[in-house]
Amino acid sequence: MKQIDSRDNPGYKALKALAADAREQRRQGRALLDGVHLLQAYRDKCGPPLRLIVSEHGMTQPEVRALRESLVDVECWLLRDKLFAALSELASPSGILALIEIPQAADDGSAPQTSCVLLDGIQDVGNVGSILRTAAAAGIRDVFLGSGCAGAWTPRVLRAAQGAHFDLRIRESADLAAVMQRFTGIRIAASAHGAQPLFELDLRAPLAWLFGSEGQGISPALERLADQRAIIPLAAGSESLNVAAAAAICLFEEVRQKRG
Amino acid sequence: MKQIDSRDNPGYKALKALAADAREQRRQGRALLDGVHLLQAYRDKCGPPLRLIVSEHGMTQPEVRALRESLVDVECWLLRDKLFAALSELASPSGILALIEIPQAADDGSAPQTSCVLLDGIQDVGNVGSILRTAAAAGIRDVFLGSGCAGAWTPRVLRAAQGAHFDLRIRESADLAAVMQRFTGIRIAASAHGAQPLFELDLRAPLAWLFGSEGQGISPALERLADQRAIIPLAAGSESLNVAAAAAICLFEEVRQKRG
Repeated sequence: MKQIDSRDNPGYKALKALAADAREQRRQGRALLDGVHLLQAYRDKCGPPLRLIVSEHGMTQPEVRALRESLVDVECWLLRDKLFAALSELASPSGILALIEIPQAADDGSAPQTSCVLLDGIQDVGNVGSILRTAAAAGIRDVFLGSGCAGAWTPRVLRAAQGAHFDLRIRESADLAAVMQRFTGIRIAASAHGAQPLFELDLRAPLAWLFGSEGQGISPALERLADQRAIIPLAAGSESLNVAAAAAICLFEEVRQKRG
Repeated sequence: MKQIDSRDNPGYKALKALAADAREQRRQGRALLDGVHLLQAYRDKCGPPLRLIVSEHGMTQPEVRALRESLVDVECWLLRDKLFAALSELASPSGILALIEIPQAADDGSAPQTSCVLLDGIQDVGNVGSILRTAAAAGIRDVFLGSGCAGAWTPRVLRAAQGAHFDLRIRESADLAAVMQRFTGIRIAASAHGAQPLFELDLRAPLAWLFGSEGQGISPALERLADQRAIIPLAAGSESLNVAAAAAICLFEEVRQKRG
């Protein structure tokens, strides 16, 4: 185990840049996973990470030690608690991080044959994470994030998605218009002033769901590429739903109809 | 307009205590609303607040001035920008706050006759806020928060709920078991290991929905008081949903069935 005692260590500096910055993650093609639960999910679904990073306090935790022992062939760095805390966004640091290669979904120019989700300009990290988690739970495989979205592999999105990343093919900085144009199923824009109540749509075909930000909505050029604009019927006096709640309602209405 | 220049002003100190602490809100029976949107919703649905608090920068904003002018009979304090920023959780302060009396729903020992929501131990402020917003949008009026929940009138819950508070009757520190026992409709616990798939339940009667925290679930004593335990069917490999996403799916499945 390599011990890191100084914040001037170049390897440590590279980790710190990665922890803070979605652009740096895209540049390096790498991300940090924080905490035992996320690492277990990654290990079980994707295999060993590039490197483990453990704090001195973490090494006293049975869960952390057990995880480390299950990945004994992986390079492991031991960090002073203070250095570790500066890499973690958690108020009480988990004690273990993993450096991983961001899984890259191949882009051969084809469109998914099954239902997929497209996110346009959703910047709230909690919402992006929640939508990824809901999509995986609804059996969706492909999620496309347009360039205005929060970084999918940032610590707070990873935490909110609770390991859903490893069940999904996630494309960031995606050309959403191109995906819409190539998709051969039904393209549905979830719109605040849509034409058709969600519950009256037939959702049994493969669907491309398009969700926009709460402030801006879906950009008009993209919305025009949709076959349907769906609206969730709201009680009188209510203006809108949180976008992650709206996505949950839409994706599980599809689940319901496809079961039936 | 009263001008506050010092952080030692006793009135200012009382506001600062209120901004930071849910217990202090319950003690005073008052809360702070932050930002034009939330204040407009309050004014339109509940009437004038007790007091407006505006920053010097806020007074240069047309939206803030217009809101102030629509409430010209309400006492207004003008704060230095620095003092104002210390009352607001927003990274870019909105420039206007309102002090309000927390609306108290009368508790005459009766239970709601229409559908309601009970939250057991949900501490995440974003989830509590999102559930309140979804409940209002689904036409629910009554929400009961058990003592382990995040404070409903804290700034981040208010922000996440986007004004839904003013469409709801919210009871905090509620005796959830007593509400469950008195409720005469069907009591449904949303459970991660429930017996019945949500989509197979008949949801056309008045319902009491019981949601628990993601970590702990619903406390067993409460869960035993439910008539049904509903599970949302998840794709293979997915363990669970975010509780706010789960609540959205449940409450809008009820909306769907009641429309049909």
